Amino acid sequence: MALVDLSKQVALGIDIGGTNTKFGLVNHRGDILDKGVIKTDQYEKVEDYIDELYKTIQPLIKKHCKTANLEGIGVGAPNANFYRGTIEHAPNLRWKGVIPFAELMTKKFGVPCKMTNDANAAALGEMLFGAARGMKNFIMITLGTGVGSGIIANGQLIYGSDGFAGELGHTIVKPNGRKHWSTGSEGSLEAYASATGIAITAKKFRAEFPESMLNQYKEEEINSKTVFECAKKGDPTAIEVFRYTGQKLGEALANFVMFSSPEAILLFGGVIKAGDFLLKPTKLHMERNLLPIFRGKVKLVCSELDEADAAILGASALVWES
Amino acid sequence: MALVDLSKQVALGIDIGGTNTKFGLVNHRGDILDKGVIKTDQYEKVEDYIDELYKTIQPLIKKHCKTANLEGIGVGAPNANFYRGTIEHAPNLRWKGVIPFAELMTKKFGVPCKMTNDANAAALGEMLFGAARGMKNFIMITLGTGVGSGIIANGQLIYGSDGFAGELGHTIVKPNGRKHWSTGSEGSLEAYASATGIAITAKKFRAEFPESMLNQYKEEEINSKTVFECAKKGDPTAIEVFRYTGQKLGEALANFVMFSSPEAILLFGGVIKAGDFLLKPTKLHMERNLLPIFRGKVKLVCSELDEADAAILGASALVWES
Repeated sequence: MALVDLSKQVALGIDIGGTNTKFGLVNHRGDILDKGVIKTDQYEKVEDYIDELYKTIQPLIKKHCKTANLEGIGVGAPNANFYRGTIEHAPNLRWKGVIPFAELMTKKFGVPCKMTNDANAAALGEMLFGAARGMKNFIMITLGTGVGSGIIANGQLIYGSDGFAGELGHTIVKPNGRKHWSTGSEGSLEAYASATGIAITAKKFRAEFPESMLNQYKEEEINSKTVFECAKKGDPTAIEVFRYTGQKLGEALANFVMFSSPEAILLFGGVIKAGDFLLKPTKLHMERNLLPIFRGKVKLVCSELDEADAAILGASALVWES
Repeated sequence: MALVDLSKQVALGIDIGGTNTKFGLVNHRGDILDKGVIKTDQYEKVEDYIDELYKTIQPLIKKHCKTANLEGIGVGAPNANFYRGTIEHAPNLRWKGVIPFAELMTKKFGVPCKMTNDANAAALGEMLFGAARGMKNFIMITLGTGVGSGIIANGQLIYGSDGFAGELGHTIVKPNGRKHWSTGSEGSLEAYASATGIAITAKKFRAEFPESMLNQYKEEEINSKTVFECAKKGDPTAIEVFRYTGQKLGEALANFVMFSSPEAILLFGGVIKAGDFLLKPTKLHMERNLLPIFRGKVKLVCSELDEADAAILGASALVWES
C-alpha cells in the first residue's frame, strides 16, 4: 500500500468577509497556487453565492488538480460553528438564521468542507505555516476592528462544548469599565484593544490635552493609523493612547497565560502596526501581572503571515488539521 | 490475544499535603479498596518518606493484588509538574528544590508513576468518577484555603507548555484590587474567593457594621464557617460577605467560560458549604457577564465526590487518564 503523497494534495481555503470573499488553492506547505475574490454581499440567497463561487473556482481546480487531488475545503467565516458546519446569525452577512454552509458546499464541490471562525482559522494557519510552527500551546489574538482569538492547547484548537470557545475579546478586563458599542458589556478587552477601542481612547485623550497633535484631525479621521502617525512624530498624547491600550491588553494576556500556559502569544492584525508603542507596554503589564512561575517564559510574537493571504492560508489549514 | 481485563487492575492514588499524605488502592470504577495515611512532615529526606510509604502500602498491595495487577501510581502534590514528574519548590513541603519524585517512586514500587497538582487531579477524578462523568469540556474550581483549578478541554487536561496551566486562582478579577498575602498580586480571584479571602472580607465588613452578629466572634474565629453560621441566622452582613464573594467569583467564571466554552463549571472545597448564599450570586454575575451566545448554557455544579476521598480518587485517575 502506498503512503499518501502530500505533494499531490491541494486544499481550497475560503475567507468569507462581510463585503468580499477571498479564496485560494493551497498545498500542504502553505504555497498559494492560485487565488481570487468574489463579492459576498451581492447574493441574497446563499445558494446563488455558492453557485458563483463554484463557477469562479472550478476552472482553477481543473488547472491545478490535473496531477493533484482536491482534498477538501476549509472556510473561515463570522459566527461559523466547527461542530455543526454552520454559519449562525452572523450580523454582517445577508443570510439570516442558521445556514448549513458546509453541507451546501460539499453538495456543490463533492469534497468535505470544514469551517470555523476567522480567528481560529488564523491560529491554525500560524501553526502550520507561520510563526507558531512546531508549537503545541499558543494563543492567537487578532487585533482589528474587533478583537478575536484562537487557542491551541495540546496541539489542538479549543472549540469547547458548543464550538464557540475563544471569545477572549469579550472577557472583562475592567469591571464596570467602558461600555461596548455592540454587546453592551462593560470593560471588555475589545472595548479597549480593538481599532474601534483605540479610536475611542484617542478621542477621549485629545479632548483632555488641547495641545495634542491629534486635535489636528477631524473626528472621523481619528483611528489607529492616525494615532500611530502622531506617536511617530513624538506626540505624548498619542503615545499615551497606545500605552494605555497596551496596559489593558497586557493585563488581559496575563490572565490568558495563567489559563492555558502557552509557549507564545501571537498578535495579528492592523493594530499591531503601532509596533513598540503598543508592544512594549503590553509586554510590561503582562509580565507584571503574572505569577512568578510564568514570568519571562511567554513569547509575544507578531504574525509572520502576509495579512492579505493569512485568512486563506488559515482556512485551508482546516483541511489538514482541526 | 485476550483483551485487558480492567476488573483485575488496581491503581495507587496518593495525595500529598503539607501535614498528611493520604493514599488508597482504587479500581477503575473508583471503588477505594483500602486506604491509609502517613505524616508528610516527619521526613527531612524525601527518600526516607518514600521508604515509609512503601513499608505502609506494600502489605495492602499484597492483600489486594493477589488476583489483580498494580497498574501504576498517581500522585497529587503541591507544585507537581506533570511533564517532568517533579515537585518543584513547594513552599509547604520540607523537601526543597526540584524533587524527581515520580522517578524515585518508580524505583521503589516498580511501576510507572504520574503526578500533577491537586486541582488537576481533582478534575480528572470528577471526569472519571464524579459529577463530570461523560463531559469533555469542563472547568474544576477548588475553593479551599486557596483557589485551585483544573481545565478539561477536548476530553484532556490542559497542562500548557510547561505543565503549569490552570492557575485560575491567580487571574486578576479586579485590577489594583486586594493585595494577595503571599504572591503580592493585586485583585486576584484567590484574594476574594478563597476561605482566606472570605475571612478578610468578613473582617472588613463587620468593622463597617457594628450591629452584625459577626462581631460576636474573636478575630481568629472569623472564617467561612462562622460567616455561614451567621448567614443562616439571617445576619445581613454575613449574607453580604457571600454575595460579594459570589460576585467576584461569578465575574471570573464568565471570563473562563469565554475562554474554553465548558459544558459545566464544577465547584469543590470547604467554601461551597455556604450553598446558595454563595452559589446564587455567583450564577447571577457569571450570566450577567457572558456574551449572549454563552448564556443559560453552562451548568454550575458542586462536586459529587466525598471530600475526604476525592484527592485519592483524583490522584488514582492519573493512572487511567492523563
